[in-house]
Amino acid sequence: MGAPGDGRAQPPMTSTTGTVFRVTTFGESHGPAVGAVVDGCPPGIPLGPEAIQRQLDRRRPGQSPLTTRRDEADRVEVLSGVFEGRTLGTPIALLVRNRDADASPYESMRHVYRPSHADYTVDARYGARDWRGGGRASARETVGRVAAGAVAREVLRHLFGVEVVGWVDRIAGAQAQVDPGAVAEAEVDAHPTRCPDPGAAASMEEAILAARREGDTVGGVVAAVARGVPPGWGEPVFDKLHADLGRAILSIPACKGFEVGSGFGGAGMRGSEHNDGFYMEGDRVRTRTNRSGGVQGGISNGEAILVRAAFKPVATVFVPQRTVTDAGEEVELRATGRHDPCVLPRAVPVVEAMIALVLLDHALRRRAQVG
Amino acid sequence: MGAPGDGRAQPPMTSTTGTVFRVTTFGESHGPAVGAVVDGCPPGIPLGPEAIQRQLDRRRPGQSPLTTRRDEADRVEVLSGVFEGRTLGTPIALLVRNRDADASPYESMRHVYRPSHADYTVDARYGARDWRGGGRASARETVGRVAAGAVAREVLRHLFGVEVVGWVDRIAGAQAQVDPGAVAEAEVDAHPTRCPDPGAAASMEEAILAARREGDTVGGVVAAVARGVPPGWGEPVFDKLHADLGRAILSIPACKGFEVGSGFGGAGMRGSEHNDGFYMEGDRVRTRTNRSGGVQGGISNGEAILVRAAFKPVATVFVPQRTVTDAGEEVELRATGRHDPCVLPRAVPVVEAMIALVLLDHALRRRAQVG
Amino acid sequence: MGAPGDGRAQPPMTSTTGTVFRVTTFGESHGPAVGAVVDGCPPGIPLGPEAIQRQLDRRRPGQSPLTTRRDEADRVEVLSGVFEGRTLGTPIALLVRNRDADASPYESMRHVYRPSHADYTVDARYGARDWRGGGRASARETVGRVAAGAVAREVLRHLFGVEVVGWVDRIAGAQAQVDPGAVAEAEVDAHPTRCPDPGAAASMEEAILAARREGDTVGGVVAAVARGVPPGWGEPVFDKLHADLGRAILSIPACKGFEVGSGFGGAGMRGSEHNDGFYMEGDRVRTRTNRSGGVQGGISNGEAILVRAAFKPVATVFVPQRTVTDAGEEVELRATGRHDPCVLPRAVPVVEAMIALVLLDHALRRRAQVG
Amino acid sequence: MGAPGDGRAQPPMTSTTGTVFRVTTFGESHGPAVGAVVDGCPPGIPLGPEAIQRQLDRRRPGQSPLTTRRDEADRVEVLSGVFEGRTLGTPIALLVRNRDADASPYESMRHVYRPSHADYTVDARYGARDWRGGGRASARETVGRVAAGAVAREVLRHLFGVEVVGWVDRIAGAQAQVDPGAVAEAEVDAHPTRCPDPGAAASMEEAILAARREGDTVGGVVAAVARGVPPGWGEPVFDKLHADLGRAILSIPACKGFEVGSGFGGAGMRGSEHNDGFYMEGDRVRTRTNRSGGVQGGISNGEAILVRAAFKPVATVFVPQRTVTDAGEEVELRATGRHDPCVLPRAVPVVEAMIALVLLDHALRRRAQVG
Repeated sequence: MGAPGDGRAQPPMTSTTGTVFRVTTFGESHGPAVGAVVDGCPPGIPLGPEAIQRQLDRRRPGQSPLTTRRDEADRVEVLSGVFEGRTLGTPIALLVRNRDADASPYESMRHVYRPSHADYTVDARYGARDWRGGGRASARETVGRVAAGAVAREVLRHLFGVEVVGWVDRIAGAQAQVDPGAVAEAEVDAHPTRCPDPGAAASMEEAILAARREGDTVGGVVAAVARGVPPGWGEPVFDKLHADLGRAILSIPACKGFEVGSGFGGAGMRGSEHNDGFYMEGDRVRTRTNRSGGVQGGISNGEAILVRAAFKPVATVFVPQRTVTDAGEEVELRATGRHDPCVLPRAVPVVEAMIALVLLDHALRRRAQVG
Repeated sequence: MGAPGDGRAQPPMTSTTGTVFRVTTFGESHGPAVGAVVDGCPPGIPLGPEAIQRQLDRRRPGQSPLTTRRDEADRVEVLSGVFEGRTLGTPIALLVRNRDADASPYESMRHVYRPSHADYTVDARYGARDWRGGGRASARETVGRVAAGAVAREVLRHLFGVEVVGWVDRIAGAQAQVDPGAVAEAEVDAHPTRCPDPGAAASMEEAILAARREGDTVGGVVAAVARGVPPGWGEPVFDKLHADLGRAILSIPACKGFEVGSGFGGAGMRGSEHNDGFYMEGDRVRTRTNRSGGVQGGISNGEAILVRAAFKPVATVFVPQRTVTDAGEEVELRATGRHDPCVLPRAVPVVEAMIALVLLDHALRRRAQVG
Repeated sequence: MGAPGDGRAQPPMTSTTGTVFRVTTFGESHGPAVGAVVDGCPPGIPLGPEAIQRQLDRRRPGQSPLTTRRDEADRVEVLSGVFEGRTLGTPIALLVRNRDADASPYESMRHVYRPSHADYTVDARYGARDWRGGGRASARETVGRVAAGAVAREVLRHLFGVEVVGWVDRIAGAQAQVDPGAVAEAEVDAHPTRCPDPGAAASMEEAILAARREGDTVGGVVAAVARGVPPGWGEPVFDKLHADLGRAILSIPACKGFEVGSGFGGAGMRGSEHNDGFYMEGDRVRTRTNRSGGVQGGISNGEAILVRAAFKPVATVFVPQRTVTDAGEEVELRATGRHDPCVLPRAVPVVEAMIALVLLDHALRRRAQVG
Repeated sequence: MGAPGDGRAQPPMTSTTGTVFRVTTFGESHGPAVGAVVDGCPPGIPLGPEAIQRQLDRRRPGQSPLTTRRDEADRVEVLSGVFEGRTLGTPIALLVRNRDADASPYESMRHVYRPSHADYTVDARYGARDWRGGGRASARETVGRVAAGAVAREVLRHLFGVEVVGWVDRIAGAQAQVDPGAVAEAEVDAHPTRCPDPGAAASMEEAILAARREGDTVGGVVAAVARGVPPGWGEPVFDKLHADLGRAILSIPACKGFEVGSGFGGAGMRGSEHNDGFYMEGDRVRTRTNRSGGVQGGISNGEAILVRAAFKPVATVFVPQRTVTDAGEEVELRATGRHDPCVLPRAVPVVEAMIALVLLDHALRRRAQVG
C-alpha cells in the first residue's frame, strides 16, 4: 500500500509561489479558515477589501444553478499590510472563514480513495490527510489564490495599465468565437457559463445541465488574454514568461493542458506561415500576426498575451464507481455531497488570478536593477 | 522603440532551475564555452563523463542530414564534484568548449530583428545582446541542460530505477502509434527522425526534406514517458508534478504547448468516462486507465507519467521576410547561416533532460523530512 | 531628503525565512493583527495551541515590572494545518489580534525620525510607513516569530529530541555564570530578568530599574544552548549552521553582534590551545573541549551548540534628544509611550525561537535525499 | 560512528548564495579546477579579467612569508557573460585551474579526523569526502568567492560609487588604530599583514612569525568599511542588511564572530549614550555618531557601514595532537603539508568579497519595483 501508515515522519507540502511577489495560501476545506499572505506587494497602491471581495464573489459556490450548492459568503478580512487605504509594502494577510462546512457526507468515504481525486496520492506522499471535503487538496484552496490574485490585478492595473480577461472557450462540442482584443469582463459575466459568445453559451449550459441530470460532469477549455503588457517581461532561459504561466495555470485543480499562442495547432504549420513578421506602428515595433501569443523567446513582445487551458471533467460523479480503500479493499463508491457538474465557470477567476500573479511577478523582476 | 539603447542599467537574466537538485546553465552560442553547474546532486552515485557525453551526442548538430550542418564535437569536461568515479555531493561543473563558432553569417543581421526569434524581446528587456547566433537565446544553451539532465538520469536510474524515454510523435500530418509502456530508446534512435514508428518516421522524414528543399521548416509534437516513478512525488498546491513538468518543457526553445495524460482531448470527455478507477494488483494500488497521465492532485500515483509537447516550426526560414531593424526601419530579411529544418529530432534528448531534472528534484524534495 | 515622498512606486519588504521549514510573519504594531504562516512543517506532529501560547506568554508585554506596560493577552488562534491534534503537513496559519493598540502617543511623532529607530530608513526604502508604534518595524513583529518558533520547538523535540535554552548572560557590568550543559528553562524563568544566576540576576535587575528611573535604557547579552543536536546538521559552504544562526539572531530587533563557541575571545588564542581534540566515548566521536561551539566547518559535530548575541540598549529613552523630521527640520524629541527599559528578558524567547527555526530547517534539509 | 559508511544515499551540499545577484562556487582543493558562476549580473558593466585577477592575486597563496607555500598562479578565465568588454546580463562563468595540487601529504591522513577541521562533520553529513587537502571544505573554495566578489565590486563601483575596504584589525595582543572614513586599499596592502597601522602591523608580523617558529598558529580580527552606500538598502525583517552581512562573513572558513557598529561593546552602554542623533547636512539626513554602523532597523542609513569579524587560529598546527580515525581509533596526529600560520592577511579580500556580494544583492533587490 506504499507509505501510508508506516509511522515515519513524512514531508510537508509547499504552498508558496512567486519570486518577488510571493503568495502563500493556507487552509483546509473544512477547517476554521482559508486565506493567503501576500509578501512583496509594492507600497502605495490603493487597495480596499471590495476589490478582493469582488473576485471572491465571482469564484464563490452557490452563485448559479450551474455550480455547487455549498453556500459560502466568503467574506474577506484584510489583517495587515494596508494603512489609510493604501498598501504598505508589508505582508498582506487575507482571511476567509469557512462557514458552511458540513463534513458529514465525507464520513462514509474517509477510508475510500475516490477515483481521479488526490486522496490516494496525498496519502502516498504525506501519510496524513484531512479527509473532510478533500482537506487541503480541495479546490477551496483557490480562495486564497483568487484573493491574492485580486491584489495582483489591482497592482497591475495601477502601476502598468495591464488587464486580464478570461472566459470559457469550449465545453463539450461548443466552441466560442471570441475576439481577444476586445472581450470585456462584463460580457463574460453576462452568462452563468462565463462564455461571452451567447450562442455557444447556450449550448454549453445545456451540456452542463444534461450532465448534471445524469449524475455526470463535463470538462472544457478556458481561454484568457492579457492586454497592455509592454515588451520585456519574462526571463529568457528557464523562467520564460509562458513557461511560468503554464506552470501557474497547470497548478489549478483539474487542469491537464496549456497552450500559448498557436499552441498545438502551430505544431502543424510551416515556419514561413507561422512566423509573426515585424512592422513599425509609429515608433512601436508590432507584429502582423500573433501566433507567438505575445511571447517570443520567453519574453513579452508587446502584443496581447493569449493562453488556453484544458480542464478535465469534475471527478466527483454520482454514478457508481469501482475503487479501493486505504486498507487495500476493492469497493463500490456511490458519491454524495455538493459538487459542481462543471468547474469551468468558477475556474475563470482562478485562471485570471494565476495569470495576474505571474505577470506581476515578472513585471517586478523586470524592474529589478533598472536604474 | 522601447528600452534598447536608453542607457539605463538593465536587469540580468536568470539561468537557474530546481529547488533541491539545482542547475545553472551558462554560455553564449558563439562565446568561449557553454555548460552547467549542478548543485545538489546526492553523493556516492557512479558517474563518468561517458554517460553525459552520450546524451550530448544525441543532441549535437551535424548528426544526420535532418539537422544543421554546424559541426560541434561537444566534448564535455567534468571540472568538479566527482572523485574516484562517484559523485561527492558537491557542485558538478560541466564544460563544453564552442569550436565551430562562425559568426560571419550574423554580421549582416546584427541590427535586424528576425521574425519569431528573441532578438527584439531580448533587446527590449536587456538593452544588451550578443548578436552572434542568438547569443544566450540560442538553442545552444540546451547543451548545458542536456549535460545536467544526463546527471539527473543517472541518479534517477541508480537511486530509483526510473527511466525516461521521449520520441517524435507527430510532424506535419504524420502521427506515430507508440506504446508508451514499452517504447525503448534504441527504437527511437533507430531512425534519424527519432520516431519509433517506422511508417510514420518515413512520412516525417519526407516532410522535413520537402520543407528544407523549399527553404522552409516544420514543427511537431514530442511525446515522452517516465516509467518506474513511485506514488508520492509532487507537491499538491503550486508545485504540482505536472505543473513543474509543464514549466520545464515549455521553457525549451520553440515549445508552445504542453499536455499531461488526456490533455486537451480529456477536456471533451465526461467525468464517468475520464475517471481512472482504482483496483488492487497484489498489494499495489493501480488504475485501470491512465487518463491522469500518472499524476493525480499534482502527485504521482505510480502509473506511467505521460506528457506531450508542441513545438512550433523553426523560425529561421530561407524565404524572404518583412521585418524591422533595431533602429525602427522596415527591411526585407534573407536569412543565411546553418539551421535545422526541423528541431524535433534534436529536441527529444532536451525534453528527456528537462523531465529528468524535474522528476529528480521532486524525488529529492519528497525525501526531505522522511525519517 | 532621499526617496520619501517622491511619488514613485517603492519596493516591498520581505518577511519570509527558511528553506524547507519556511515562516512568513505578518502584521503591524497597531493594525488589526500580527501572526505567521508556517509552511513546510512535517505532518503527524502532536500540536495544540497551548505549546504556542506558552512561548507567547514568555514574550508578551506586561509580564513584570521590568517590561513595558502595554497590556496584550496575545491569544493565538490556529487557523489551519492541524487536524485531530496533529499537524497535517499543510501550512499552519497562526493569528494574534492586537487589542491594546493605542496609537495616540505616536500622533505627535508621526513626522519625527526617532534616533536609532527605523523611522528614517523605512522611509528611505519604502516611502510609505505606518507610523503608529513603529508599524511593521516594531518589535511586535516578533510575536509571529515566537509563535512559529514554538511550532519548530515542538517538532525538534518530537522528531529529534533537541532542546533549546536561552538566558540573559550579561547586563551592564553583571556577567552570569551558567553551565550550558545543565541550565534549564525553569531556572531561567525563576527571575524576571531571565538570568539563571541569582547573584547576577539581582545586579541586573538593579541596573534595569536604575536606568528606568533615569528615563534611560540598558543593553546586554543573551546566551543560548541547543542540546541534543546530532552530528551532520548544516551546509558546508554559504549556509553554514552557525552562519544561518548568526543571520537569524542578528535579524532580531536591536541585535548588533553574534558569536559561536569561542567567538571574539577565540581570535586571541593560538591554534594548539583552541583546537578541540577528538576522543571516543563508546562508539561516539566527542571533543574534549568545545571552543567550536558545536559546529565545525559549518556542520554540527554532536556537541552542545553555544551562541551569544549582543543587544544594544532600547532606543526609546525619555531624556530629550536632538533629531530631525521627515521635512528636514531639526527638532528636540521628548518621547512618550510605553516602552521597555531593557529588552533582554523578553528577547530570550525570541532568540530561542530563531535558533529553533534554523535548527529545524537544517534538520529537514539534512534529511533531504537520505534514503 | 554515526552516518559514515552506512551505505545510504546522503544529502548534497549547497553552494549558492544571493537572491538577485546569485553566486554558485564549485571545485575541490585538489580536483581539476575551482571557480564560480555569477547569475544575475546587470548588463552593460565594463568588465575585463584584470579586475578579477587583481583580487585573486591578493588572495593567492605564496604571496609573502606570512602565507602558505602552496604556489598557485590562480589565473582566471572568463567563459561567458562578457561580450565586447561589457557584461551581457547572462551568467558569468569564472574558471581557475588547480595547478600545484600535491595530494601526497594527505595520503597518511585520509582516515584521520584532524581536530577543529571539517573532516568529521563532512563525513557525518555526506558519507563521502575528497580527503585531499580538505576537498570541498578547503579554504580554496574561496577562490570562487573572491572571483565573484570582484565582479560585484566592479558593479558596485560602476553603478553606485560604493567602495569596500577591509583590513587586519587585531592579531594576538596588537590592536590597530584605523580611521574607517579614510583608510585606503593601498595602505592596507603596503604591509604583508594587511594591517594599515604600521606599528600594530609590525607587532602582528612578529606574533605570526613567532607562532610559525613554534609550529603554531594565531587568529585575529578583520574589520571592514563600506563607503558610499545610500540610505535604503536592506530588508527590515529577516533579511536585515547587517544580518545578511553577518551570515556571509560567518560563512568564511574559520570565522566565529561578527559585529556591526558598536557590537558587543554597545551592549554595555545606556540608550542615551548609544543613540545616534540625527542632524541635517544640507538636505541630507546624517547622524552625529555611528554606533549603528550604518544600519538601522536592518536598512542602511547613509553612514559608513562598519563590521568586524573574529577568526579563530588556523586548525593545522605542527605540534602533536590526540584525535581519532574514521574507524573510531584514537591516534596521535602529526600534521604535514603547506599551511598558513595565520589566515588573516589572505582573509581580507575574502571578507571584502562577501561584503560586496551582500551589498550588491541588496542594492539590486532595492531597485526591484522602483519605477
